[in-house]
Amino acid sequence: MSITNSIKDFKMEVNQALVDKAVALEPSLIKNTVKPIGLVTIEKGKEDWEITERKSIDELSNISLGKGQSVCIDFGDHHAGYVSFKLKPVGSPPDAPAHLRIKLGETLCEIAEDSSTYNGSISSSWIQEEFLHIDILPNTVSMPRRYAFRYMEIKVVDTSPKYEIVIEDVNCIAVSSADMSTVSPLTKISDDLIKMDKISLKTLQDCMHSVFEDGPKRDRRLWIGDLRLQAQANYYTFKNYDLVKRCLYLFAGLAQNEGRVGACLFIEPKLLVDDTALYDYSLFFISCLYDYYEETKDLTVLNDLWEVAYHQAQLALNRVDENGVVRDSDDWWCFLDWHDELNKQAGAQAILIYTLKQAKKLASILGDAERKEKLEKEIKKTTKGAINQLWDKEQGFFVSGNQKQVSWISQIWFVLAEVFDTDINGQILDNLLKVSPRVDLVTPYAYHHLIEALILNNRKAEALSCMRSYWGEMVKDGADCFWELYDPKNKYASPYGSRIINSYCHAWSCTPSYFIRKYFL
Amino acid sequence: MSITNSIKDFKMEVNQALVDKAVALEPSLIKNTVKPIGLVTIEKGKEDWEITERKSIDELSNISLGKGQSVCIDFGDHHAGYVSFKLKPVGSPPDAPAHLRIKLGETLCEIAEDSSTYNGSISSSWIQEEFLHIDILPNTVSMPRRYAFRYMEIKVVDTSPKYEIVIEDVNCIAVSSADMSTVSPLTKISDDLIKMDKISLKTLQDCMHSVFEDGPKRDRRLWIGDLRLQAQANYYTFKNYDLVKRCLYLFAGLAQNEGRVGACLFIEPKLLVDDTALYDYSLFFISCLYDYYEETKDLTVLNDLWEVAYHQAQLALNRVDENGVVRDSDDWWCFLDWHDELNKQAGAQAILIYTLKQAKKLASILGDAERKEKLEKEIKKTTKGAINQLWDKEQGFFVSGNQKQVSWISQIWFVLAEVFDTDINGQILDNLLKVSPRVDLVTPYAYHHLIEALILNNRKAEALSCMRSYWGEMVKDGADCFWELYDPKNKYASPYGSRIINSYCHAWSCTPSYFIRKYFL
Repeated sequence: MSITNSIKDFKMEVNQALVDKAVALEPSLIKNTVKPIGLVTIEKGKEDWEITERKSIDELSNISLGKGQSVCIDFGDHHAGYVSFKLKPVGSPPDAPAHLRIKLGETLCEIAEDSSTYNGSISSSWIQEEFLHIDILPNTVSMPRRYAFRYMEIKVVDTSPKYEIVIEDVNCIAVSSADMSTVSPLTKISDDLIKMDKISLKTLQDCMHSVFEDGPKRDRRLWIGDLRLQAQANYYTFKNYDLVKRCLYLFAGLAQNEGRVGACLFIEPKLLVDDTALYDYSLFFISCLYDYYEETKDLTVLNDLWEVAYHQAQLALNRVDENGVVRDSDDWWCFLDWHDELNKQAGAQAILIYTLKQAKKLASILGDAERKEKLEKEIKKTTKGAINQLWDKEQGFFVSGNQKQVSWISQIWFVLAEVFDTDINGQILDNLLKVSPRVDLVTPYAYHHLIEALILNNRKAEALSCMRSYWGEMVKDGADCFWELYDPKNKYASPYGSRIINSYCHAWSCTPSYFIRKYFL
Repeated sequence: MSITNSIKDFKMEVNQALVDKAVALEPSLIKNTVKPIGLVTIEKGKEDWEITERKSIDELSNISLGKGQSVCIDFGDHHAGYVSFKLKPVGSPPDAPAHLRIKLGETLCEIAEDSSTYNGSISSSWIQEEFLHIDILPNTVSMPRRYAFRYMEIKVVDTSPKYEIVIEDVNCIAVSSADMSTVSPLTKISDDLIKMDKISLKTLQDCMHSVFEDGPKRDRRLWIGDLRLQAQANYYTFKNYDLVKRCLYLFAGLAQNEGRVGACLFIEPKLLVDDTALYDYSLFFISCLYDYYEETKDLTVLNDLWEVAYHQAQLALNRVDENGVVRDSDDWWCFLDWHDELNKQAGAQAILIYTLKQAKKLASILGDAERKEKLEKEIKKTTKGAINQLWDKEQGFFVSGNQKQVSWISQIWFVLAEVFDTDINGQILDNLLKVSPRVDLVTPYAYHHLIEALILNNRKAEALSCMRSYWGEMVKDGADCFWELYDPKNKYASPYGSRIINSYCHAWSCTPSYFIRKYFL
């Protein structure tokens, strides 16, 4: 995710006791040395970049590279980690430095496309391309940055007419705080779901580091929207409860102005909440805590973080007008999905109701009768507001904003918020699939909520079909991990202006494992 | 220097006892922290790149740089060393890495010209330009490579729309094995010579590291042609005898096939002689040893290295034909100077005689009568050969090769070899200055020998005038150190196809201090 709004007069409100608990939970990373499996040649095919030739990795030491020559190394799967290799000169003693360009890509397009032409909306600094001078040869090159990649291209910008180089002993120290050996492999389901699960697991694994990251290529940060889905998938796979707990304490301990939970956190060089605030993301602190408690029954954490969670509901309610409806605005105040034209009002209203209900259950568990009552009142008010102001009975859809926009995500969130009963919710979902409003879903994050809504409203077959036509299509398109963005109808799309900047291992896309393991075994 | 010939079936012949003596003499480098003095703006002037604006370095911390913006930092003088600086983000917390391009230049053209258009004959890997990604901000960037530079430009390739960067605490740890505090400054001579001496000293200092390097930017290697002149300048300035001794032992201990002293040595990753052999450079081992003994009267070194020195004379004599003349060939067998059309035969013959005479004196010092006699015989034979076959009495010049080429450098070396007496030598020099043959001198290395020849033949006024019109002109052109290549008539020339690859602090250009301090005080 990459957003450029900032809250005014931003400051961080630190609760050191909570931060200390988070710091104590910092995981050790599991390191695995991974060797590449082959060499590939990438060329433009009829539709897209293709691998047109494969060679054994054993060939690498037979290839000497001079000025302008390159080799593309395939690690066989996606990894997040640290790369090293040996450079051996051949010919005369090296009489000039070796100057290399190294590109690392999660996908072929990142290797094959000319990154100098990138002119997208987010920083080109995310492109995994380095230029290195190696003064002394032979040498071992240990690249200091962590990369997310499957392919690594090494190109000789220049050596000298007197020598060439040979590359040997290419290694990746892959890192993650997820232990894949703890997850039982699936067997008794169809092969395509087994594959989908495997890719989901890999996606989640490569996003689990010191915190749950949104993507190991980009933004490499703890976003609460991603955290919520990662934690849910984690409960059915790696069961790394401490990492969820750590992230919850971090968000609670590092708040923004007025005690608002920020949309994302930075871990280095020091713990820091970003100045981005999003209406839905702050509310999702309640969801994350609710889900965590439901999974672990950990009352200590619930007691520690209840105040912060409840406060998010209070802050969100400040935006509710006299009719019980969340006020709309033109700025980047709520996320929901990456659709350019999406109006956020209805989705925000639904998420408010959804999280108020979770908060009410937490109040009940804690025996906090006063707040439970208050929340109940607000749930009624906002539910009434939603039905009176946003529900268009004639269309059978919720509308959003001044233009009364009908979007997929608005319907999905109102279904999840259970404003109506299962019958009406089912009708809304059927209607949605039939009518297919123009303002559709553009991210796996949004698709996740569609699948969840279908399953919870007795439409498992439709959910499965939808998973197959979305994540399944990504698998057919060669995904090693699930991608940040995917539109089966427009596979080269990017909201950022170029797909080479997209993240191809993205936390919010990892939930097929959650669905398969929770609902389809 | 940069040459691409290699000897066939190259192998290294190691004399470990001599190498061990060299290793024991490895100097500690003197480190000086240098701070930049200002910020400069470089623009294209009428003739060349110019500094059009200067600001105090104190302004640096007031400048925040966003995408595409840059700042050029002036260190006030040439340095060879290691650069570090602090990067501080301003604005929102950095939500993307900072991607920087850093150019370091000894001169303005290296900063101002687009290095991507470089298409010269030697490796572009020598261009001091780096691209860095800084993931964590704030941060201290300590660049691991050693650079030779006065100017450093830092350009932001990209940050993100949410933040910019401020650069602070820019430092250079300048390194050298020369101790400037041991050299007495000059006072009682004219200002232009004082300045010329100062620049020569800086040139020599910045070329003195673990060995005498040819240039700290390029090739950063021990070439024997450079060593000979550096050692001579060193005797009148830093008097670092151990460094000369170390280099002599290295050349003697790391020979090529047949015990030939190589043209240059590599120090890292291990001690290694290059596979380049040059007729004149191998013979200059004798000169280096002779000069060292004359300066130090160190008989131990002379005894240790006499065999190797004498052997170079023997190898060189293998190329002498029955007429006592060195056989010519078309390959890159002898250096002399960087003139494309230069025929090397006459110069090689003169250098053979010059070094045979030095070898004879060394044999005499060592009481090696047999070799002294043998050398005397060879001197007579080659001198006779030179006069009979190469001297054109009518023109008053020595000719070279099949085409009987008359070049400046051939005359100069025959004068230095004292084939004729001072009277005739004087006439040759006068004739040379008057006639000015087309195949002229193109490097300070060649000019050095002209100056030496003039001085030794009672033409000190002409020598001084020549120093002023050559090195003096470089000073006027803004040299901080003396350049590898300089043609006052064509200031943008480079034998490599682009002046951005030239070395602007070059060992063989440092000899004005030698001349001034030896002959003009």
